[in-house]
Amino acid sequence: MELVKNFNLRNERNLSMLVDFYEFTMGNGYLKNGYANEIVYFDMFFRRVPDGGGYCIMAGVQQLIEYLSNLKFTVEDIEYLRTKNIFAEEFLDYLKNFQFTCDVWAVPEGYPVFPNEPLVTVKGPAIQAQLIETMVLLTINHQTLIATKANRICRAAKGRPVMEFGSRRAQGYDGAIYGARAAIIGGCSSTACTISDQMFGIPAVGTMAHSWIQLFDDEYTAFKTWAETYPDNCVFLIDTYNVLKSGIPNAIKVFDEVLKPLGKRPSGVRIDSGDITYLSNRCREMLDSAGYNDVKIIVSNSLDEYIIMDVLSQGAEIDSFGVGERLITAKSEPVFGGVYKLVAVGSDNKIKPRIKISENEEKITNPGFKKIYRIFDKKSNKAIADLITLHDEVIDESKPLTIFDPIYTWKVKKLTNFYAKELLVQIFDKGNQVYESPEVIDIREFSIKETEKLWKEVLRFENPHNYYVDLSQKLWDLKHNMLRGFTEEFSSKEN
Amino acid sequence: MELVKNFNLRNERNLSMLVDFYEFTMGNGYLKNGYANEIVYFDMFFRRVPDGGGYCIMAGVQQLIEYLSNLKFTVEDIEYLRTKNIFAEEFLDYLKNFQFTCDVWAVPEGYPVFPNEPLVTVKGPAIQAQLIETMVLLTINHQTLIATKANRICRAAKGRPVMEFGSRRAQGYDGAIYGARAAIIGGCSSTACTISDQMFGIPAVGTMAHSWIQLFDDEYTAFKTWAETYPDNCVFLIDTYNVLKSGIPNAIKVFDEVLKPLGKRPSGVRIDSGDITYLSNRCREMLDSAGYNDVKIIVSNSLDEYIIMDVLSQGAEIDSFGVGERLITAKSEPVFGGVYKLVAVGSDNKIKPRIKISENEEKITNPGFKKIYRIFDKKSNKAIADLITLHDEVIDESKPLTIFDPIYTWKVKKLTNFYAKELLVQIFDKGNQVYESPEVIDIREFSIKETEKLWKEVLRFENPHNYYVDLSQKLWDLKHNMLRGFTEEFSSKEN
Repeated sequence: MELVKNFNLRNERNLSMLVDFYEFTMGNGYLKNGYANEIVYFDMFFRRVPDGGGYCIMAGVQQLIEYLSNLKFTVEDIEYLRTKNIFAEEFLDYLKNFQFTCDVWAVPEGYPVFPNEPLVTVKGPAIQAQLIETMVLLTINHQTLIATKANRICRAAKGRPVMEFGSRRAQGYDGAIYGARAAIIGGCSSTACTISDQMFGIPAVGTMAHSWIQLFDDEYTAFKTWAETYPDNCVFLIDTYNVLKSGIPNAIKVFDEVLKPLGKRPSGVRIDSGDITYLSNRCREMLDSAGYNDVKIIVSNSLDEYIIMDVLSQGAEIDSFGVGERLITAKSEPVFGGVYKLVAVGSDNKIKPRIKISENEEKITNPGFKKIYRIFDKKSNKAIADLITLHDEVIDESKPLTIFDPIYTWKVKKLTNFYAKELLVQIFDKGNQVYESPEVIDIREFSIKETEKLWKEVLRFENPHNYYVDLSQKLWDLKHNMLRGFTEEFSSKEN
Repeated sequence: MELVKNFNLRNERNLSMLVDFYEFTMGNGYLKNGYANEIVYFDMFFRRVPDGGGYCIMAGVQQLIEYLSNLKFTVEDIEYLRTKNIFAEEFLDYLKNFQFTCDVWAVPEGYPVFPNEPLVTVKGPAIQAQLIETMVLLTINHQTLIATKANRICRAAKGRPVMEFGSRRAQGYDGAIYGARAAIIGGCSSTACTISDQMFGIPAVGTMAHSWIQLFDDEYTAFKTWAETYPDNCVFLIDTYNVLKSGIPNAIKVFDEVLKPLGKRPSGVRIDSGDITYLSNRCREMLDSAGYNDVKIIVSNSLDEYIIMDVLSQGAEIDSFGVGERLITAKSEPVFGGVYKLVAVGSDNKIKPRIKISENEEKITNPGFKKIYRIFDKKSNKAIADLITLHDEVIDESKPLTIFDPIYTWKVKKLTNFYAKELLVQIFDKGNQVYESPEVIDIREFSIKETEKLWKEVLRFENPHNYYVDLSQKLWDLKHNMLRGFTEEFSSKEN
């Protein structure tokens, strides 16, 4: 089937003004005070995996690329900003002639990622690197949240297909459109969202709503008409009136009367309410005894990973799941707390690291221009740890590598027989795009493979093993010395 | 200040394909089987107020109008659908020549609304009324969710301004853009989201991030540079290093050194981390004793209505709040469960009501083509109840009106000295827009006024009084008889 793919809806929109207002006030200030072209380094990272999970699934890089490629300000934008009466004409000129010239690195979509490692690093003139903060965060936070939730739900379904059904309950249009994209990256097999199929080539599916049944005078006529219209993909929604007394008997009757004479096999039945374990078991019996043991039972109705695990452990006979609101909003934890922090200032040979101090220890940032290595065991091919290093550090795979816990520093691990893979890839070089995203369905496959490289202890839903994200000795020393400097400075002052 | 308002971003986008795929399969089926022009009636309504609140705030009507006004299918859309190999050419032609001809009624934005009453009613040809389901739900669900959450947060702040700061944590671009719009409808005073100001004329605000401070070699220089750049709107973020030992002393020093000689008063300080009650009290003391008792203290950091109530009850001295992720995602309950149900079939003089049965009693729908009256007490001007009636019923304000609980039917209330206001207004007449939305800031004012008409028992955060949403005797009888018919039918069958 040929698809009209990558219909570029985003290109029709100018989202350059989707910016927190303070990025403009700061930009104007940078320019006025001679800091516009000061080279700075920002890291986007998160601090905690939602739902107590062991890892997240990176997503949103393609939309970040589209945004950065299209970044420009129209005459109307400049006019609007001028009405605020706080921006210098020099700054408005800067925006009018805006040219994005930053270097950007990102972890490719689909990778499992962990707290405190940079998912995106931006290096470039202060005014530019600052201006893109809101959209970097918004794009990566949203899609990573949904891909991560989808990954949990799909793992709970244990190989059964999970369909994304949430558009109507999404938080806004893009919540539906890009949420469906992220759900596929996280492992869903299809979506109900037609435009997402059209844009990204991810399969859209769907059959009937209750309204189809209700439009007809009775359920039997509604099913019969459907079967005559779609004999090749006949899935009935069987809970409009009563699943066991009406839905299943009418479905079987129509399978027998309409499809059997045509030599067609029905595809499935869908249950959207009630006690799904009990109903799926009874439906299975009734279908089997009518000779329809190949007909699938599909279930939807406020599902998530917890309910799916629960009904499967009770012996529910379900072949696939439609998951809506709890996936498309990541209901159990709907915020992905990614942040974008300044980590260094200065061009190549005079980089000055910067740190954000906090009384909450976990909010202290990792200073400096950095990269991430994922270390794999050569024999098992499993991921052992991620090591964050300064940007000029190289790992020599031929020598043993000692890593240590950045807090409990006496906890040391000596690695041999490993290989190291850099996670951050450059996506923009001086403002030019230098990376092409794979197709979404290929990212999905990639993600499944990379997730299989994690130990099962990290995959656990409850109390997973903390995957090691360590700092190189050089980075640790740098951070430690900076922190110590601040502590000494403030401890000498009165409260 | 002149604003470049209502920059129509939405008009640049074709969202007609943001449709659950089953709307197309059903549409194709309706057409093929002669039901395309059958007149149907759909109600959009919700069943439960999020967060255990007493009411919701209606929002999203303007975006629903824009969607319905722009509904059309492009050559590319038709081409895409053709690749699915399940749609009849006749149906693809229908879409190619699509003309929206439905009548649509909606409760205007800003009204407090209650469970089980139709917020939107659509009357028109089956294929059309079906096709718009996804977007009706998505649009109203999202904005009503956020407006309702904002209303709670603003009430907790007790008159202190609440700024919407959530773009970076929103669920997608529209989550930020329309979320900011809905937040203003719910009572927020301003937003950080620049594009929402540009589009809707809602004030965007913002000053500096931690990165401004970090870019400079020290906090004092960062503050000084800022004050020199923005002497008229000087708000410092004071928690980059240490609020009490560094942030406040440096702020006061710069106020004295830069602003005082210019004869300017500083605007405020913002605290974004730490123990905000303690810090706000100490900051207040330090500012006051330095002669800055008019300088505002602004607080942000994962706030919501519960934390705001808590810190205010502890005596925190806070003048305004910046609320981000917990507002823009409605974190405590991020799904608004609006549904869109077929309630009748047939044109004017032969309307056949339809009902959706469920074993969950609260999921049973109200059948028929209906309207809503809000009944107010003439003396107090307070809202007493909403009464859902059939579409042809008229309330005679000159006679006593008896209303009764639809479940506990012996609970009867006899009303005199009341007036009744219809809530649903027509927004489309045979596909033509017949309603103009007010400006967003005017909707905000309207919403505040309409909310003040609710008794304080309904406004309560915990265990509010259930506002009465009753059915007219005629509607109740209709529903009761339909339910009884089904129950008798199924009770005569074996399980």
